[in-house]
Amino acid sequence: MEIAKLGEFGLIDRLTKDLENKNESTKYGVGDDCAVLHYPDSEVLVTTDLLMEGVHFDLTYIDLKHLGYKSAMVNISDVFAMNGTPRQITVSLALSKRFTVEDMEEFYAGLRLACEKWNVDIVGGDTTSSYTGLAISITCIGEARKEDIVYRNGAKNTDLICVSGDLGAAYMGLQLLEREKSVYYQQVNEAKKKGDKKALEELAHFSPDFAGKEYLLQRQLQTEARGDIINKLREAGVHPTAMMDISDGLSSELMHICKQSGVGCRIFEKEIPIDYQTAVMAEEMNMNVTTCALNGGEDYELLFTVPIGDLDKVKDMEGVRMIGHITDQKYGQILVTRDNQEFELKAQGWNPLNDQK
Amino acid sequence: MEIAKLGEFGLIDRLTKDLENKNESTKYGVGDDCAVLHYPDSEVLVTTDLLMEGVHFDLTYIDLKHLGYKSAMVNISDVFAMNGTPRQITVSLALSKRFTVEDMEEFYAGLRLACEKWNVDIVGGDTTSSYTGLAISITCIGEARKEDIVYRNGAKNTDLICVSGDLGAAYMGLQLLEREKSVYYQQVNEAKKKGDKKALEELAHFSPDFAGKEYLLQRQLQTEARGDIINKLREAGVHPTAMMDISDGLSSELMHICKQSGVGCRIFEKEIPIDYQTAVMAEEMNMNVTTCALNGGEDYELLFTVPIGDLDKVKDMEGVRMIGHITDQKYGQILVTRDNQEFELKAQGWNPLNDQK
Repeated sequence: MEIAKLGEFGLIDRLTKDLENKNESTKYGVGDDCAVLHYPDSEVLVTTDLLMEGVHFDLTYIDLKHLGYKSAMVNISDVFAMNGTPRQITVSLALSKRFTVEDMEEFYAGLRLACEKWNVDIVGGDTTSSYTGLAISITCIGEARKEDIVYRNGAKNTDLICVSGDLGAAYMGLQLLEREKSVYYQQVNEAKKKGDKKALEELAHFSPDFAGKEYLLQRQLQTEARGDIINKLREAGVHPTAMMDISDGLSSELMHICKQSGVGCRIFEKEIPIDYQTAVMAEEMNMNVTTCALNGGEDYELLFTVPIGDLDKVKDMEGVRMIGHITDQKYGQILVTRDNQEFELKAQGWNPLNDQK
Repeated sequence: MEIAKLGEFGLIDRLTKDLENKNESTKYGVGDDCAVLHYPDSEVLVTTDLLMEGVHFDLTYIDLKHLGYKSAMVNISDVFAMNGTPRQITVSLALSKRFTVEDMEEFYAGLRLACEKWNVDIVGGDTTSSYTGLAISITCIGEARKEDIVYRNGAKNTDLICVSGDLGAAYMGLQLLEREKSVYYQQVNEAKKKGDKKALEELAHFSPDFAGKEYLLQRQLQTEARGDIINKLREAGVHPTAMMDISDGLSSELMHICKQSGVGCRIFEKEIPIDYQTAVMAEEMNMNVTTCALNGGEDYELLFTVPIGDLDKVKDMEGVRMIGHITDQKYGQILVTRDNQEFELKAQGWNPLNDQK
């Protein structure tokens, strides 16, 4: 169905009609000039993100349901990265005419799945049009007790540096999707040149074989916010001194923590957690897997530092890996390689403003 | 300067380096995964907006400083429309390569002016790239005591319907700008056809004469949120039963209030406040000025209802006009014309999803 048929308010009604608010802090959701929230006993956390088609996502790779899920998750992840609990999101969309009502229902289905997973209410937003593709802006609101909040600036000399999960897989997933896309269009172009109708028809129904690489795709397409790690740390009584989520790459994020905390760091290549599929794919593409893990973005794992006294609590924690420690600022930010060489870390993480056309 | 030279973080540093937080509720602003706010004694209001180049603004009409000002004001206006006090905004921008660092400084200068006017802190956001023009997403956070909040759903039979300021001027300002733009390009095209270099050179330095129409331009380009009216109502001890800001046109907004409150309304054409310049311009363009006032958007005036017992308090209030009253739902939404005819109101307000290409 064409969206123009429903109009802005008709579409919003349709997408939000059976939303149920689950959080006590949500006093009034969709339907007025503002949402109304209530946070008498804790601090309010606010984070926001703007995703543009062609820059942050390519709808030839990712379907709208996954995109909705990911858009919500990356914001939810920012609230966890403050050691908070996500509670509400607002969702603004700008749509070009090629999107239908059903497309938006798919997108909302993904959004809702992500929100249900972490008990987050959709409380408002804006739906409007765009001449050129899809723009998505999400704001996530959460809460934390003042004393629980973890900033980026609290890392201290001798603290242990930890990461959750493994790194580089989301980036390798993107490489894989881009490779398949370029191979596909090459074949289509060749078939067109030859006028080979049969080949073109086959290509129309072609789907690439991703066997043995499922994890990489999942990491790229189905982002998960690591609230489970936040819960584990809480249960173990570990209070990180600094924390952030890894959206632009480990190097870049470590440098933020070091800069804001006024410290240096020393991490060990051999400790950086890398999945088997990531390593195989890097090999296949002739890339250095450590570089991928250091600079590949979109893992949305947590990077955090804990006092050395918490060593026993984190060293065997499932899903958490110690990769190094914080040093005095004068020692800089150092990577120790497998063969014991030392390099200064450089942030080559994804910088959207350098990549633009 | 090219933005790529600074990178995302360099640009953010530059734009936000001397931001000072003025509100007690702002505990931590730009620089971490989330902003941290503190609202122990009031409700938190949240509103958000996504503005797309070509759909919501045209940079041939509006400079970046005015655009920054307007982008902030339209969100601040939503907080006032709940009878709240705006406190913080987050700002997300997606920029195509044609924008420079200086452009963004202009945009931020406008944002800051708007924020300073209402004592609002800029606490975070996102800066990224776009392939096709500028996208702006702003979230505004405010506060209100629970008992002070005014929703859209509280209008009661016999309540008076009031609007602030005057209506239709922002719409006529847009018509004026569009007319001048089309005349200008017509002349450029003609001069090109004739190869008339002298005319082209003159056109390059041409600026249209807007004498006598300054108010219309101001209303289109320099949107003001009516916090002054909110303050006046408070001082007079008037508590509106329903309220919203007029962004899509009086008809459309009245219908929202009637629908959500389960009531009808009766407004009088002769009471709708219209500025002299709006009337002259409508005449010039062969448009019905009442239609412009009813359906033209972007006035950002306040539409509100008050109990009839407050008649004496609002009838002589400067900047406020009573335009009719609330009725039982069964009487519908009625406009009484100057010659005492009655028409059912229709929302023809600006619907971005019907206008799209």
